[in-house]
Amino acid sequence: MNNNRIFSEELVNEVADELLIADLQRATIGEVLLLSSELERRTGIPFIRMDQGSPGLPSCVIGREAEKVALDRDVASQYPAAAGVPELKKEASRFVKAFIDIDIPAECCIPTVGSVAASYGSFIAVTQADPKKNKVLFIDPGFPIQRSQLKIIGADYLQFDIYSYRGEALRAKIESFFERGDVAAIIYSNPNNPAWICLEESELKIIGELADKYGVIVLEDLAYFCMDFRQYLGKPFAPPYVPTVGRYCKNYIIMLSSSKIFSYAGQRMAVACISPNLWNTCFDGLATRYGGKGHFGSTFTASIMYMITSGVTHSTQYGYAAMLKAATDGELDFVTETEEYARRAARMKKIFTDNGFTIVYDRDVTREVGDGFFFTIGYPGIKSGELLKELLYYGVSSISLSTTGSEEEGVRACTSRMREELYPILEERMRNFKKDHPIV
Amino acid sequence: MNNNRIFSEELVNEVADELLIADLQRATIGEVLLLSSELERRTGIPFIRMDQGSPGLPSCVIGREAEKVALDRDVASQYPAAAGVPELKKEASRFVKAFIDIDIPAECCIPTVGSVAASYGSFIAVTQADPKKNKVLFIDPGFPIQRSQLKIIGADYLQFDIYSYRGEALRAKIESFFERGDVAAIIYSNPNNPAWICLEESELKIIGELADKYGVIVLEDLAYFCMDFRQYLGKPFAPPYVPTVGRYCKNYIIMLSSSKIFSYAGQRMAVACISPNLWNTCFDGLATRYGGKGHFGSTFTASIMYMITSGVTHSTQYGYAAMLKAATDGELDFVTETEEYARRAARMKKIFTDNGFTIVYDRDVTREVGDGFFFTIGYPGIKSGELLKELLYYGVSSISLSTTGSEEEGVRACTSRMREELYPILEERMRNFKKDHPIV
Repeated sequence: MNNNRIFSEELVNEVADELLIADLQRATIGEVLLLSSELERRTGIPFIRMDQGSPGLPSCVIGREAEKVALDRDVASQYPAAAGVPELKKEASRFVKAFIDIDIPAECCIPTVGSVAASYGSFIAVTQADPKKNKVLFIDPGFPIQRSQLKIIGADYLQFDIYSYRGEALRAKIESFFERGDVAAIIYSNPNNPAWICLEESELKIIGELADKYGVIVLEDLAYFCMDFRQYLGKPFAPPYVPTVGRYCKNYIIMLSSSKIFSYAGQRMAVACISPNLWNTCFDGLATRYGGKGHFGSTFTASIMYMITSGVTHSTQYGYAAMLKAATDGELDFVTETEEYARRAARMKKIFTDNGFTIVYDRDVTREVGDGFFFTIGYPGIKSGELLKELLYYGVSSISLSTTGSEEEGVRACTSRMREELYPILEERMRNFKKDHPIV
Repeated sequence: MNNNRIFSEELVNEVADELLIADLQRATIGEVLLLSSELERRTGIPFIRMDQGSPGLPSCVIGREAEKVALDRDVASQYPAAAGVPELKKEASRFVKAFIDIDIPAECCIPTVGSVAASYGSFIAVTQADPKKNKVLFIDPGFPIQRSQLKIIGADYLQFDIYSYRGEALRAKIESFFERGDVAAIIYSNPNNPAWICLEESELKIIGELADKYGVIVLEDLAYFCMDFRQYLGKPFAPPYVPTVGRYCKNYIIMLSSSKIFSYAGQRMAVACISPNLWNTCFDGLATRYGGKGHFGSTFTASIMYMITSGVTHSTQYGYAAMLKAATDGELDFVTETEEYARRAARMKKIFTDNGFTIVYDRDVTREVGDGFFFTIGYPGIKSGELLKELLYYGVSSISLSTTGSEEEGVRACTSRMREELYPILEERMRNFKKDHPIV
């Protein structure tokens, strides 16, 4: 039954055709975003926008003000140093110590144009370092952009859905890939985008041990840093610390984005923190291609990142440095500020589960999954792509889990654009959804 | 004779060793910059820094103020659109019309993280578009970073030194490369970095005609836009216009950097202006790799640039838009502001030529080469790398022409860091250089 749809199938298909969206069931984030905006524009009916993970809070004013001061000092007229401005490198190193409790020297902290550029440059470096190792292993579900980056580079990837391999089961699964001998790096985000599951220290230990055993580099994306709100991780230089693979292996790159923790996505700013051991390792593949000794740190900085963007926006580097410093000094509680997302998630999840939906990725090893930036929902008897489409008819936009490497059926929901006045609307629409989709 | 050296060979070699500079004669810009800074630091003796082409003027205040306004509107909290903010796209299109007199719709103007990211993304797109065409032809001398970008991508290049092929002679030379059938694109900067020669309309016509004949895409780097000061090019919507290949062929990308014309290098901001015909061409190679129809414009924007940086710093896009608008509206005479470089070049060239040096690239087809941001000098009997090294002993840093694809002997000098108090010092040092290097 479709009695209570808000947008007709004809209208949705018509707009999708106009936007050249070939397959709605496999639509990218960008396509869903365009489609829902266009439907809103044509009909005047608001969408519940759960698609793009754009910050839904004002950006951190400390960063903005520091950028303005830097502009007044005219940092715009001079190229930023390839390795980043000293203030930012120092504050990144202190921040990592304060909240993760690991030691990464300032020298090894390299600013990048968002974590997107950090993972792109890292993929290049790791897949070129050893000619025998040219594949990246994704712990899925994962961030589709990272897979698209490998298309540009022309490198292959391997992947598995972690759903059935939590805890000790992870060891045999990962080892089955590493044993092939062609895996250069393993990548995951923690908390996970899209599933909001969190790898626990025991799982990170397995990843780290296997990485060292097989000479694999770990790429750890901490975009949602300290946003596992089940425990308060925001006290600098005091436990509990953010879980990291950095405690368990030698060769890793931690990607620290400013986008979510400081709501600073617009300025495109992140730092790649490279473990000192990896920084100082020399690779034949890098030496052959770029000359010199193949030193990882300087090749990554000078021969790869510098050649792609010639540094990162000067004023924004000072802005990020100021925000990191304020957090490390205990003057900015970014964790409590972003906790708003957890409150939204709890309310939204309740509306969905009250109306027949289930949480797809619902557990970590020892606990229920927390409330935060994303969550995943499924509906009995409806497959991923179909659910994305069906929800569109009821004015709710999301991302199909099938595009994230997941084998489970469902969609990703982002809490960032939720607003107070939309809760009753979501509730009504989901009641109608349930009426039209009786669970047998 | 070395009687009048300022820095001893031993000291220079010692510092070069410490900085891991393998071969001083082939040192990169970054290496020369580090070496001269370190020598200055240790000795307290100032260098005449002619190495890096960093702006030597304050950044354009219109851009800075517009960035601050944008920050106050909190553009930092939202991802910038992949295709760029509408204001910037519109102003880039108007600017191109006003000063080059060609029509490129706003849609086809895509912001990039500096022209470095524009050429990097363009190299990817053009070498992947047609599997048979995977090489880039450089009209040398050229910008070493662009060659390094091809190392990352793993694409090959071809090159020739234009010195002996000016005017009509260019036709047969370029055709000899295009006839091979494997050239995807041709690239040059105009005015030229490092030689400051300017391709004339007759030469651009040859390039354009051959590009269309052989299906080659032209990458035109206009980083030194309107900086051929032999004629005033700064009046919007009035001739004389900036010479461009865009008048003579269908498929081209013009790269418009903010770094030099607005002294805005620190903020990493440029626009890639893609010709409408190229924008709308579909390529099998792009379709195979990225899916869809292989549409050049949308693949470049959404599947390549977006995947590398996910957009360009939001506030800086508004800053660049404001500067372009002011220039197009006739309210900002950026040409007269940058003419300071020409005055410096004239004085510096006189000091060198008074002391036995020659201008290496000294002529265009119909005229003597102008004064501007760069110039090239040689000294009788001394080869490129040797001259770079010898000048270092006299406290003058430069770039060897041999690292730019030139077959001539000499170095590139940049005028941007020259200061009033340094002219007498340069004069004295070059008098001493001449005494120590008698011309036989």
